[in-house]
Amino acid sequence: MSADDVRLGINELIASYADCIDDDRLEEWPDFFVDDCRYLVTDRASHEAGLKHGIIYCASRGMLVDRVTSMRRVLMFEAHRYRHLVGPPRLLKIDDRAAETRANFVIARIMHSGETSLFATGRYLDRIDVSDTSYRFIERLVVLDSQKIDTLLVIPL
Amino acid sequence: MSADDVRLGINELIASYADCIDDDRLEEWPDFFVDDCRYLVTDRASHEAGLKHGIIYCASRGMLVDRVTSMRRVLMFEAHRYRHLVGPPRLLKIDDRAAETRANFVIARIMHSGETSLFATGRYLDRIDVSDTSYRFIERLVVLDSQKIDTLLVIPL
Amino acid sequence: MSADDVRLGINELIASYADCIDDDRLEEWPDFFVDDCRYLVTDRASHEAGLKHGIIYCASRGMLVDRVTSMRRVLMFEAHRYRHLVGPPRLLKIDDRAAETRANFVIARIMHSGETSLFATGRYLDRIDVSDTSYRFIERLVVLDSQKIDTLLVIPL
Repeated sequence: MSADDVRLGINELIASYADCIDDDRLEEWPDFFVDDCRYLVTDRASHEAGLKHGIIYCASRGMLVDRVTSMRRVLMFEAHRYRHLVGPPRLLKIDDRAAETRANFVIARIMHSGETSLFATGRYLDRIDVSDTSYRFIERLVVLDSQKIDTLLVIPL
Repeated sequence: MSADDVRLGINELIASYADCIDDDRLEEWPDFFVDDCRYLVTDRASHEAGLKHGIIYCASRGMLVDRVTSMRRVLMFEAHRYRHLVGPPRLLKIDDRAAETRANFVIARIMHSGETSLFATGRYLDRIDVSDTSYRFIERLVVLDSQKIDTLLVIPL
Repeated sequence: MSADDVRLGINELIASYADCIDDDRLEEWPDFFVDDCRYLVTDRASHEAGLKHGIIYCASRGMLVDRVTSMRRVLMFEAHRYRHLVGPPRLLKIDDRAAETRANFVIARIMHSGETSLFATGRYLDRIDVSDTSYRFIERLVVLDSQKIDTLLVIPL
């Protein structure tokens, strides 16, 4: 695989991840991760302080599946949707097995009433498995700029 | 033409479309479409319900031209401007003649007074004629996340 | 260098510039410019009227360094942060020495309290030195859509 193909594959992974959430196809969300993954939503101050836990913390693909299941069970998932806007990802490091990237994001939240607001901003810090043809996240850190995140953080970011 | 060139051509079409509107060069806007085109602004719920009409509906390039003409005539076009931020487009399907892409957007509206607000979020669902060197839209569906769009939808999105 | 490499280099320059500011590594900010550079923050109306000065104006790399030094001295730099979201850059012109690009941006401002707001929208109009392996800005015009910019414009955009 050429460097360009790797880059395209990474872009596609990041974009289709956002579409999956924005389209409310949350059952497919865990498939973007390897089994032995790490998914963390935290804020900038906690991240810089080296804290390993955050607002949402999942240490395996199974935990992601559990999260979606319980979310669907409480049946509040149609109350709002997100719209992700993810900037062009920067490729920081790459070898045959994994790539490290970062990308800025802005997420708008659209309530069922139609009310739209700027919900969250921050950056994705990713480690991506590129050893197989279908790329997946080994680690996805969602570092929010603000520590004042709405209590209504149900849907993954 | 290589796959990379096609991709660059698509990116350029989408970006220059946004610039055309943001720069208030609306007379050039219809030139981004083939003659026998379809331009539709709708909301997510209507789109998912399969409704074919929307907030704005144009079934030919001529209708786009008419729209700009009447808009200029009522002379309210300097009252506000948009700023488009369009995420990296995803290429869903391609053959020798047409490409299907989708891209997320966030549009800010800047009133003449300088007041800036988050105006609309959503995604573009596009079919693009790639058979000629100058790419154009066969179909551009603007699917807004919110059904609560401001009544002041004059300028195309 | 191939056209693709140049494009990647430009994308990387623009993205790492934004990261530098968002990460509050402002001492590195002047290094994104050649010595004999021009950095201007202005608004659309002033830009279209051909006015050469703006809200912030620096006519050399030394002036950028001075700006950071005085900013740090007044010690208000931790009061807020930005999050840049820069759209895919358009390559307008290129030769062996320089490239002309433009890119839309949306900047959110995150106050120390966590309060997040849509701070500024606009476009970057850039001239980039591509004659060396490390690309740098010869000229960066930051054209804001609104003339009503918050008085708190301390951090560069």
